[in-house]
Amino acid sequence: MQKEIPYKIYLEESELPKAWLNLRAFMVRKPAPLLNPTTFQPMTQADLAKIFCDELAKQEIDDQTPYIPIPQEIVDFYKMYRPAPLVRAYCLEKALGTPAKIYYKFEGNNTSGSHKLNSAIAQAYYAKEQGLKGVTTETGAGQWGTALSMACSYFGLDCKVFMVKVSYEQKPFRREVMRTYGASVTPSPSTTTSVGRKILEEFPGTSGSLGCAISEAVEAANRLDGYRYALGSVLNQVLLHQSVIGLEAKTAMDKYGVKPDVIIGCAGGGSNLGGLIAPFMAEQLQGKEHYQFIAVEPASCPSLTRGKYAYDYCDTGRVCPLQKMYTLGSGFIPSSSHAGGLRYHGMTSTLSELREQGLLEARAVEQTSVFAAAEQFARVEGILPAPESAHAIRVAIDEAMKCKQTGEEKTILFGLTGTGYFDMYAYEKFHDGKMSDYIPTEEDLAKGIAGLPKIDL
Amino acid sequence: MQKEIPYKIYLEESELPKAWLNLRAFMVRKPAPLLNPTTFQPMTQADLAKIFCDELAKQEIDDQTPYIPIPQEIVDFYKMYRPAPLVRAYCLEKALGTPAKIYYKFEGNNTSGSHKLNSAIAQAYYAKEQGLKGVTTETGAGQWGTALSMACSYFGLDCKVFMVKVSYEQKPFRREVMRTYGASVTPSPSTTTSVGRKILEEFPGTSGSLGCAISEAVEAANRLDGYRYALGSVLNQVLLHQSVIGLEAKTAMDKYGVKPDVIIGCAGGGSNLGGLIAPFMAEQLQGKEHYQFIAVEPASCPSLTRGKYAYDYCDTGRVCPLQKMYTLGSGFIPSSSHAGGLRYHGMTSTLSELREQGLLEARAVEQTSVFAAAEQFARVEGILPAPESAHAIRVAIDEAMKCKQTGEEKTILFGLTGTGYFDMYAYEKFHDGKMSDYIPTEEDLAKGIAGLPKIDL
Repeated sequence: MQKEIPYKIYLEESELPKAWLNLRAFMVRKPAPLLNPTTFQPMTQADLAKIFCDELAKQEIDDQTPYIPIPQEIVDFYKMYRPAPLVRAYCLEKALGTPAKIYYKFEGNNTSGSHKLNSAIAQAYYAKEQGLKGVTTETGAGQWGTALSMACSYFGLDCKVFMVKVSYEQKPFRREVMRTYGASVTPSPSTTTSVGRKILEEFPGTSGSLGCAISEAVEAANRLDGYRYALGSVLNQVLLHQSVIGLEAKTAMDKYGVKPDVIIGCAGGGSNLGGLIAPFMAEQLQGKEHYQFIAVEPASCPSLTRGKYAYDYCDTGRVCPLQKMYTLGSGFIPSSSHAGGLRYHGMTSTLSELREQGLLEARAVEQTSVFAAAEQFARVEGILPAPESAHAIRVAIDEAMKCKQTGEEKTILFGLTGTGYFDMYAYEKFHDGKMSDYIPTEEDLAKGIAGLPKIDL
Repeated sequence: MQKEIPYKIYLEESELPKAWLNLRAFMVRKPAPLLNPTTFQPMTQADLAKIFCDELAKQEIDDQTPYIPIPQEIVDFYKMYRPAPLVRAYCLEKALGTPAKIYYKFEGNNTSGSHKLNSAIAQAYYAKEQGLKGVTTETGAGQWGTALSMACSYFGLDCKVFMVKVSYEQKPFRREVMRTYGASVTPSPSTTTSVGRKILEEFPGTSGSLGCAISEAVEAANRLDGYRYALGSVLNQVLLHQSVIGLEAKTAMDKYGVKPDVIIGCAGGGSNLGGLIAPFMAEQLQGKEHYQFIAVEPASCPSLTRGKYAYDYCDTGRVCPLQKMYTLGSGFIPSSSHAGGLRYHGMTSTLSELREQGLLEARAVEQTSVFAAAEQFARVEGILPAPESAHAIRVAIDEAMKCKQTGEEKTILFGLTGTGYFDMYAYEKFHDGKMSDYIPTEEDLAKGIAGLPKIDL
């Protein structure tokens, strides 16, 4: 007999994952290796160690080890805010009148407001272990910058954040949270780097972009003694650390004998979705179970649904390694949207490869329908979701409503990556009916794709 | 042998309190009754039922029933965000190098961002039960308004919020959260009520006050058919509902065989502190245990430390009942501070009476020292506290540092009422060294006290 399922399933601290799950190790056809941006040759661990901490460079390359132990210091930090609850959305189910059973893994119960902290603390830990002074990074929406600031503050590391100028100006409160954690925050593009100065010369009035802030952060790390660069998504190491999301979700579901039929997550760079699906996809790759996996992206930045699977630069300045991924081209400038965390031209190579193999579905949704779902969810479930997370809510509701039509009692699991406290400007626009949907035309997309590097492998 | 104590103690849903604890029932010398603002006679349940829902009027009067069952519908809502964690502040202890053992009950893990939801859902429930159309209320800092909006949205009730004008303008995001939950939000003073029009006539440029917004909300509830007024603090009914904080904290501590020596909470109207101490104070009143209880208030609004114990109006417009309490006078305008939730001229009658009986200590702290504590806490414990909550953190740290000097291993419990996501403007001022401390002069206080009503009982 199935145990009665509480509203929130909290695991014990002793049930925290002791090792991260390295999804690539379970894949027969592996994601393609990163390429050196100058030579177009596969990046070696030594190459990567110039950018990242040694241990992270090793993790970035490793597609063989299925489980990588989590150092105790990181586990201790995780205890501050993990295990994160798995919530049974009883109230949403009732409001929708659906026979579907909806669960979400909620990652917003920490001050950084999202799942980003799971990787930030790992990256800070390895920097500390290596005896570094600090790290540099970029942030767009601000969640990653906040998370890394918190992690660095915990280990006494310096943290230099390049914040996309438009966010720096529109989200002063995000900036102040980072300052509360002792980080220095510079609007990007800035005059502190040569790539920043070059961009400012070319485009004097620019309000910046994530790709540009990445270039600046990498340059700053290179120049400063005892610093390395840290990135909050896209990378293999980040997906690895984020596997705690899926591992906890799976342990919680297993405990109650529940198996999800559909697993849904929003996808910008892919870190949350990659983490959420990790143990489920690993089972499927081993032929043990079958699940339906759905990646949800904004219609304004549709890398998985309308991009090309090709090698591309991770940044606008083209100083970072190339990754084989679904991409809209590193020169593609997504039209302004309120889900800053999903405005990235590419998609992490693991998810891209899974998509290519037909193991991962992708859906693109428009932002007004996303905010409608966010509001509907907030009113009954009592959590104000981040616009990024609300992409997953949109499709979860869509799937639940299909069940209502068909009568199917599917079990739906989605990732609720974070809270929207710093996104009320967007909610205001939505309430006032002033929010628009931007969908790139075929021409827009063709331009981005035309800029892809010509690489003959 | 004592069990090892986890970072966070989460109770099971089955351990949620099934009844609220009515602290007044345990007091031999009861708090004085509310008085009718016109006749100065004790308010009857029938008088109160004109302002509040019937059941809440009953709860307001009842100082005899020790435990009042929590209706199942409210318990079900509580399950969305309760039991709230009791956190062992291992990281703070380590950072302070204190032998003290510090615990905090964290009430910020819900979208309203604070403990206010505990009473909001109860007040909305009884309104729904009575078949009302909606409720009116006021909000200053915005946490209560947000909580009541969420609760009303859950039960499909209309919610009209009068928001102190300065907050309405300075905290547009708070306003948007309330709108997300379907509430209508009016800046106060407004032209929609006669008391508002009168105040605007007298003080055309006024930015409003909590006392004035209360007067407007009460008037609006009176005028509208099928509406009652709801208040988020000060009242007996609110303290009753907030007892879930203390009940859960005590259950969690009992489970691990831990007994607090010192219990600390911030106090504005007194709802959080009254709820936190409820079961502990009840034990003490029964002669079973002894605890040290400390109320922390801002030096800028020092009702408990520098006010007078006397009958006073609960609102500026003098339309609400009078309460016997420590008060600075309903005409006292606290100087601007960043802990809007603690800017109230009085203190709930139960805590006032306990203070008068010598059972409750009080300390006043200055806001720069409060923000310093907030930042210190955030950096190691990973939670960004509300300025109000940080008052308790300040004194908890002070007490822990005393233990460091004396070597005592005291167990400290404090209430962390909420998060500071909407208070980053204040944090910014603090980071930039632009925050001042305002302490009222003896003359300021004398003026407020001089305005107290002359009542001969």
